[in-house]
Amino acid sequence: MSNTMPWRDRMRVKVDFSNMMAENIGERGIRDIDFSEAFENCSYAVTQTDAARNAMRWRDLHSVQSDVLPEVKRIAERVRRSYDTFVVLGIGGSALGPIAVQQALNHLHYNSLPAETRNGPKFYVEDNIDPQRMSDLLDIIDLRSTAFNVISKSGSTSETMAQLLIIIAALKDAVGDEWASHLIITTDRERGNLIGVAKAHGMDTLYVPDGVGGRFSELCPVGLLPAAVCGIDIEALLDGARYMDELCTGKTAGNPAYTLAVLSLLAIKKGCNISVIMPYSDSLKYFADWYAQLWAESLGKATDRCGNIVHCGQTPVKALGVTDQHSQVQLYTGGPFDKVITFIGVDNHRANVCIPRELTEIPDIAFLCGSTLNALLDSELYATQYAVSKSGHMNLLVCMPEVNAFTVGQLIMLFELQTAYMGELLNIDAFDQPGVEEGKNATYALLGKRGFDDKREELERASASTIRYRV
Amino acid sequence: MSNTMPWRDRMRVKVDFSNMMAENIGERGIRDIDFSEAFENCSYAVTQTDAARNAMRWRDLHSVQSDVLPEVKRIAERVRRSYDTFVVLGIGGSALGPIAVQQALNHLHYNSLPAETRNGPKFYVEDNIDPQRMSDLLDIIDLRSTAFNVISKSGSTSETMAQLLIIIAALKDAVGDEWASHLIITTDRERGNLIGVAKAHGMDTLYVPDGVGGRFSELCPVGLLPAAVCGIDIEALLDGARYMDELCTGKTAGNPAYTLAVLSLLAIKKGCNISVIMPYSDSLKYFADWYAQLWAESLGKATDRCGNIVHCGQTPVKALGVTDQHSQVQLYTGGPFDKVITFIGVDNHRANVCIPRELTEIPDIAFLCGSTLNALLDSELYATQYAVSKSGHMNLLVCMPEVNAFTVGQLIMLFELQTAYMGELLNIDAFDQPGVEEGKNATYALLGKRGFDDKREELERASASTIRYRV
Repeated sequence: MSNTMPWRDRMRVKVDFSNMMAENIGERGIRDIDFSEAFENCSYAVTQTDAARNAMRWRDLHSVQSDVLPEVKRIAERVRRSYDTFVVLGIGGSALGPIAVQQALNHLHYNSLPAETRNGPKFYVEDNIDPQRMSDLLDIIDLRSTAFNVISKSGSTSETMAQLLIIIAALKDAVGDEWASHLIITTDRERGNLIGVAKAHGMDTLYVPDGVGGRFSELCPVGLLPAAVCGIDIEALLDGARYMDELCTGKTAGNPAYTLAVLSLLAIKKGCNISVIMPYSDSLKYFADWYAQLWAESLGKATDRCGNIVHCGQTPVKALGVTDQHSQVQLYTGGPFDKVITFIGVDNHRANVCIPRELTEIPDIAFLCGSTLNALLDSELYATQYAVSKSGHMNLLVCMPEVNAFTVGQLIMLFELQTAYMGELLNIDAFDQPGVEEGKNATYALLGKRGFDDKREELERASASTIRYRV
Repeated sequence: MSNTMPWRDRMRVKVDFSNMMAENIGERGIRDIDFSEAFENCSYAVTQTDAARNAMRWRDLHSVQSDVLPEVKRIAERVRRSYDTFVVLGIGGSALGPIAVQQALNHLHYNSLPAETRNGPKFYVEDNIDPQRMSDLLDIIDLRSTAFNVISKSGSTSETMAQLLIIIAALKDAVGDEWASHLIITTDRERGNLIGVAKAHGMDTLYVPDGVGGRFSELCPVGLLPAAVCGIDIEALLDGARYMDELCTGKTAGNPAYTLAVLSLLAIKKGCNISVIMPYSDSLKYFADWYAQLWAESLGKATDRCGNIVHCGQTPVKALGVTDQHSQVQLYTGGPFDKVITFIGVDNHRANVCIPRELTEIPDIAFLCGSTLNALLDSELYATQYAVSKSGHMNLLVCMPEVNAFTVGQLIMLFELQTAYMGELLNIDAFDQPGVEEGKNATYALLGKRGFDDKREELERASASTIRYRV
């Protein structure tokens, strides 16, 4: 690629979907004519998503936070200056983005680096309530030098609030009256339980903007503060999102998110109820987890916008290249034609590692000597695409020139927009999650929360489980 | 459960499949009569798997390694005495078992513990060839005090051998002539590339027994050495496998692996091409990865034993409770009826964590105060089972009294036997992986390995990819 091209354009994330097409993989692929027709007919997805822009506040986060960024940076600087360890208390959308971005952009053994070479304080995201996990965390951190970022829009997320109560008591033990200064709250500006607490104790507070749901929140303070604390260039992250948004606004031609959405729709129509995401880079391993929430929770819906029962939604599957070639590729080549595999490839890795000429007495591995891990990884990605395609299974490649804050920002916006378009194409609300209420209410009932007596009775009636179905 | 019961029986892993049944979840479930009929008709799976016992050497590992265990322990003691860090170089079956068992049975922040409270040396499993990963590992370990366990049955696994060449050169730099003493080889006793190297340099060597494929190898030295190095009770692990094997040998009634296999078959017939495994314990998080390889690579097959084209195989999906309630449960309750969810519950976690009475000014969270994380986790598991069942989706529960070496040994054998029975029921070879050859050969061709010229020409012909499918 030409070096005279502007840097942002050289860093453009691209999509190669040749291996989705019948032309390349045979009859199980998509015919060119069907793709062209769908590409034309589905354009309303772009029009309507653009028209609803004001309701989709997540889409503008790259350009509306000029007031917010100085505050994010101020708090980040305070944490970096005053604390050795930074812990996010959050779950779901409050955790997956921060984890993904940290893994993508920092050292893979960040926490094990000595303080002087690390990019910031040690970083943990506690996104579960497993008692061993909390106990084990408290074994290894020093509360006196640890700051906690509590992230919950509503301030009523049971898991996060339970963690918070434990941490408040532990901080009171460890630092006495100073406990509140160790807490940073990210929550709704007005509603919710946390804002009162934060104000009463003068805690640093950041806000989740209206219209930004959990799984679309990585580019608001939910994700920006943890990233900034760990030394990540949050402006470049936002600039990447802006760049991708520009590529996708007001047009279908050259719009990679729209192209992906059309391909997904056609694949679903061909019986693919599974969407595998398989980055070939350890740095993007947890990006797959972030994607899995976005795709599953947005598109897995029982009813469409008209109230028709549809039970739609592809199941996302996380894989990692080349590791999972030794775990999943037998299934991907030999198994059913029920999945699309989205490979993510990286042109330039952050390290180059040569494979030295050792063990030259073994002829079988002579081809490795003098090569690089980079070349081996690239070859395996290409070879796997080839094998999956030859077996007639649909797959596509998202190409990243590098993994940096700008390209990661693009990737976030790319998949968020693909998801929004898919909501239009499936005629569902991609931004709600009614199916999680039942489990939440049942938890409240089991734990005796006031107002859930009826639900508790319902659970008791149902619990007369049948002994003959146990072994 | 009665405390007068023998310990091993109290530690028995059980299965509750009430929520697979129409009786409990409605018409999408399995009718009692269909289950009974299948349970009777499929019994040949047990008979034939038992009859093939001698060919399935993985099944007897709990009882045939009395000669091997002293050598495993001797090497483990040497490592524990002489090294601060222990690194496994391996991929797929050589990595997923060691990772799963370590996560299950040791501290969740094992490597961050101070040496005096840690159960052994720091532990890393390098199961990818990402150049940044290798580079980042070398940043944080001290080669002079690091031992490497190279695990490759054939001694020709490209990824592992590439890593080995890099590590040999690095060790020569760091410790000179002593380099070979830092390497421990786990490989085939006679065939393969590594055995000659190991002998020539007097390296400690352990053997992968014949008839034990990668994904069934955790209970042979592949898994036992890493576990022993990290202070895990490998005899209890093997005893757990023996206990489960006894429950499953020679009978269908009371055989939990057979019960799971019959349920899987019926679920597949009802259109479930997805198998979700969702442990409610961080300690079992990577057990899901181990399971994903076992299930995918064993059952994802293009042809059956008679050569008929079948393209069978469920796609395994890894989830973690409660974390993924905030990511996947919307899909599991609202989405298609295309999956079975296997929850894994734990009766007694290794820690009990109380939720203190703090922030009592917030009425919404009063129900949490005075409870425990344990109760919250249990309630959320039950509530999620309830919500998934109420939405008509099949799910079952594997119940572990505790997560300890004995119960983890049971879990390994339970799923291995379920997989073997499924091979019989689907009439496929559950122990081969022909579908990975294409990708391997293409990699060899791309990297110029001798003897792969034809494949390279084939690849060149195919690579004339079409620019119009890029965006």
